[in-house]
Amino acid sequence: MNKLVKSIKEAIQLAGLKDGMTVSFHHHLRNGDYVLNMVMDEIAGLGIRDLTVNASSLFDVHLPLIDHIKNKVVTSVAADYIAAGLGKAFSIGIMDNPVQFRTHGGRPSDIAQGKTPIDVAFIAAPSADVMGNCSGKYGKSACGSLGYAFADAMYAKKVVVITDNLMPYPMEGWSISEDYIDYVVEVDAIGDPKGIVSGTTKITRDPVGLVMASHAAKVIEASGLLKDGFSFQTGAGGASLAAAKFLKDIMLEKNIKGSFGLGGITGYMVDMLKAGCFRSLLDVQCFDLDAVESIKNDPRHQEISAMQYASPTSRSAAVDSLDVVILGATEIDTDFNINVHTDSNGYIMGGSGGHSDTAAGAKLSMIIAPMFRARLPIVTDKVTCISTPGKDIDVLVTQGGIAVNPNKVELRQRLADAGLPVVDIMELKEKTERITGRPDRLPKGDRVVAEVISRYGDIQDKIYNVVE
Amino acid sequence: MNKLVKSIKEAIQLAGLKDGMTVSFHHHLRNGDYVLNMVMDEIAGLGIRDLTVNASSLFDVHLPLIDHIKNKVVTSVAADYIAAGLGKAFSIGIMDNPVQFRTHGGRPSDIAQGKTPIDVAFIAAPSADVMGNCSGKYGKSACGSLGYAFADAMYAKKVVVITDNLMPYPMEGWSISEDYIDYVVEVDAIGDPKGIVSGTTKITRDPVGLVMASHAAKVIEASGLLKDGFSFQTGAGGASLAAAKFLKDIMLEKNIKGSFGLGGITGYMVDMLKAGCFRSLLDVQCFDLDAVESIKNDPRHQEISAMQYASPTSRSAAVDSLDVVILGATEIDTDFNINVHTDSNGYIMGGSGGHSDTAAGAKLSMIIAPMFRARLPIVTDKVTCISTPGKDIDVLVTQGGIAVNPNKVELRQRLADAGLPVVDIMELKEKTERITGRPDRLPKGDRVVAEVISRYGDIQDKIYNVVE
Repeated sequence: MNKLVKSIKEAIQLAGLKDGMTVSFHHHLRNGDYVLNMVMDEIAGLGIRDLTVNASSLFDVHLPLIDHIKNKVVTSVAADYIAAGLGKAFSIGIMDNPVQFRTHGGRPSDIAQGKTPIDVAFIAAPSADVMGNCSGKYGKSACGSLGYAFADAMYAKKVVVITDNLMPYPMEGWSISEDYIDYVVEVDAIGDPKGIVSGTTKITRDPVGLVMASHAAKVIEASGLLKDGFSFQTGAGGASLAAAKFLKDIMLEKNIKGSFGLGGITGYMVDMLKAGCFRSLLDVQCFDLDAVESIKNDPRHQEISAMQYASPTSRSAAVDSLDVVILGATEIDTDFNINVHTDSNGYIMGGSGGHSDTAAGAKLSMIIAPMFRARLPIVTDKVTCISTPGKDIDVLVTQGGIAVNPNKVELRQRLADAGLPVVDIMELKEKTERITGRPDRLPKGDRVVAEVISRYGDIQDKIYNVVE
Repeated sequence: MNKLVKSIKEAIQLAGLKDGMTVSFHHHLRNGDYVLNMVMDEIAGLGIRDLTVNASSLFDVHLPLIDHIKNKVVTSVAADYIAAGLGKAFSIGIMDNPVQFRTHGGRPSDIAQGKTPIDVAFIAAPSADVMGNCSGKYGKSACGSLGYAFADAMYAKKVVVITDNLMPYPMEGWSISEDYIDYVVEVDAIGDPKGIVSGTTKITRDPVGLVMASHAAKVIEASGLLKDGFSFQTGAGGASLAAAKFLKDIMLEKNIKGSFGLGGITGYMVDMLKAGCFRSLLDVQCFDLDAVESIKNDPRHQEISAMQYASPTSRSAAVDSLDVVILGATEIDTDFNINVHTDSNGYIMGGSGGHSDTAAGAKLSMIIAPMFRARLPIVTDKVTCISTPGKDIDVLVTQGGIAVNPNKVELRQRLADAGLPVVDIMELKEKTERITGRPDRLPKGDRVVAEVISRYGDIQDKIYNVVE
C-alpha cells in the first residue's frame, strides 16, 4: 500500500473535488511555484467550476488564474497577500465576489476553527515519501520551511502532496507527517528554483534607506528592549536588512545575547544567529538560499507552523513573545493606520501577510518608510485601506524624522532622551507636503473588490475597484 | 506574558477542572512517573470528584490511584495497558465502572474523533519553556519520545505542561509546540530516572528463549519479507531482543538494507540502525537510555506521534507500512486469538498497547511464547480475553514448533520449505498438554471489570472480576 497516484488529475478525481468546493495552496515556492497553475489547469480540464481558491499568498506567476476566473472555474479567492499583476486584475473587477484578505495568523485560525473549510489541499513538497511524509528542506526545489502548509494539511478534508523529489519511505526529517496525507503525486518539477528562493536581497546602498536604517537601529537601542533575551523580526526589503545589519553591530558591540529571530527568514537573520545575536530562529518561510541551507543544517533554526507563528486562536504564538518588528507601509495615516494592500493608484499590490499579526504581538512595532515615493507622501490623512490598525503601530521611522504613536508616551520620551529626531506625525506630514505638494485624493470605485479581514475575523476595511 | 503558574494546584484551578470531567496522562515516564500521582493528589485535595482518568498506560507506581478510586475522586479509568499491581485491584472490583481498554492507535483515534473528549491534559515534560514548547529529549528526567502525548496536547480543552527542566524561550528541539499549551508548571522532579528508563533489558540466556529467538529469526528469513526495504518492530522482552540480535546477524551477513524499525525503541534497535540494518527508527516511546541518547543525537531516529504510529483513522500510520512485528502473549487459542490483558489467574496484568495495531498493520505478525509457563500451557481452546483477534496473527513460534495461521497457506509452505518445524496449532496444544496436563478452566466472576475496545472502536471482549 502506498498513496502514489499517477497524475494530478487522478488525485483531483480521487479526492472527490466537485463544483462549489474549496481548494487550497501555500506559497513557499513564491514566484517560482508551478503547482497552483498545474492543479488549476487540471481542474479546469475536468470541467469543475465555481471553486474557491484559498491560498496563503498569490504571486504573479499565478497570472493564469485570471483565465480560470473569467471562465468561472474560480469564483472566489482568499489570500493573505496578492502580488501587483494579479492584484491589478482584481482591482479592475474581474471577479464578482470580493477577494477575502486575511493575515498569516488569521488564515490558519479560520481554517482551524472551521470558518473556512478546505475540501482539497494541495501541498507543493520539495521532498516527500510514498506515504506523504514531506518536507521543504531537501530536493532541487528546496524552499526550507513549509510553515504555511500545516493548517491546510491538518484540517482539509483531503490532502494531496505534489513533489518532484520522491524519497524512500520513511523519509528523514519530514515536516508534515503521513497521518494527514491522502495522495502523493510525483511530477517533473514543482517550481523554478530561480523564483523559489531569489538570491539574498542586498542591503540598501541608497543614502535615504541607510539613514532610515540607522534611525531604526537606534530606536531599538533606545527603546529599552535591546537586552539579553531580545527577539526580533524584520522583512526582506533593503532598508529593513540594513537596519538588521546596524542592529547586529550594536548587539555584538554590547555583547547582547538575544533569544530568537522570527518570521520569514533571510540570510541576514542567519548571520545574526551564527554571530550569537540569537539562540534560535523560528522560521515560517525562507526568503533565500542561505535561510534554506541553515534550516536544513542548523538545529537552532527551527520550522514553525503558521499557527505557532501567528494564529490569534492558538494558546500562544511566537508573535506574542516578540520584542521588536520592523515593517513596511505604502501609506500611514495620522492615526498610524497602515496600508500595505494597495498602491498609490489604489490597485491591490500586496496584503498583510504577517504585518497585522506581528504588529499586534510585538512590544515595539516599527514602520520604516521614506517620507515620499515618486513624489507621493507616505503620511496621509486617511489610508486608502486599513491593513493594520494604528493602535498596533508604535513608531514610524523616515529619513525626515521619527513619529511616535501618541499612546506611547514613555517610548517617545526614551527616543527624545537618546537624541533621536522625534517629530509629531502631523509635522512630518506637513514637512513632506512642503516638498511634494498635497496629492489629490484618489477617486474610489463603487464596487467592493476585496474585504480586509482582521486577524480576529472581523471585516476591517474594504477595497474598491479602480476606474481606469 | 508567559504561561508559568506557581503550582499544579493553581494550574488545575485555572484549567477549570470540575466534577465529572476527564483528565489525561501519558506514560513515557513509565514506572518512574511522579506526575499522575502529584496531579491526582492535588485534585483530591481540591475536593473534585467523579473524574475519568484517561491514561495511555498505568504502571504500579500509580498504585495511589486506588485510594482516589475508593474515595470516588476517580470513577472511570481508560488505559491501553495496566500493570499487574493496579490490574489486580481492578480485577477484584474496586471500581463500579469497567475499565476501558484501548490500543495505542485506538486511543488517539478516539480522542481525535471526539469520542473520548479530554477536559484537562497533563503533559509530563522532561524539558519545556515558559510558553509550553516541550520535549522528552533533554533534562534529568529525559525519556526521549513524547509520542503518546501528542493527541492529548492537540485535542484537550486545556493542556498543562509539568516540567522539572524549564528552559529559556524558545527552547531548541521541541516536540509539542506552544500553540497547544495553556499552562506550564515547574516542579522539583517529574520522575525517578531509575524508573523512567531502566537499563537496557538483556538478551535472554535462557536456552528455551534462545531456541524461540532463533526460530523467529529464521521464520522472518524464510517469509520472503527480509529484503532491502525491510521494516520491523519488536518488544523489549529478552527473547524478542534475542530474535532481533539473530535477525541483525542475518541482515548484516546478507547485506540487507532495511527501511525502518518501529515502535517502542530499545538500544538493540539503535544498534541495528547504527549497523545499517535500517535507514530510520520511528519512535513513539523510548524503552532505555540508549534509545533516549539516540533520539536526542541521531536525526535518523525520529519521533512519531501515536496517530502517526498506529491510529486507524489517520490517513495512514507507520504500522500500515510494517513488514514484521514480533509480539508476546499470555495465551493464544486455536483460532490464534491472543490474550495479553490477563494472567493465568484471570487478573489484569497488561493490555494491548500497540499489539493489536501492529498485528493488524504488519505483513507478518509473529507471536513468540514458550509452550508453557509455570506448567500452564500457552495454547488454549479459547483465550480468557481476546486482546488481538486471531485473523491478525500469522504465526506462533514456540520451542516446540511453529504454528501458522491456516489462512496463511503460502507462509506455511515457505516455512516448511525452509526446514522449519511447522506444526498444527492443535498438535502443539496436545503436545504441550502431554507435558503440563490440561488445566482446569478458570471460574469467571459475574461482574464486568473491563471492556476491551478494539482499535476500530467496537467492544471486542469483556474482562470479568476474579473471585478470590
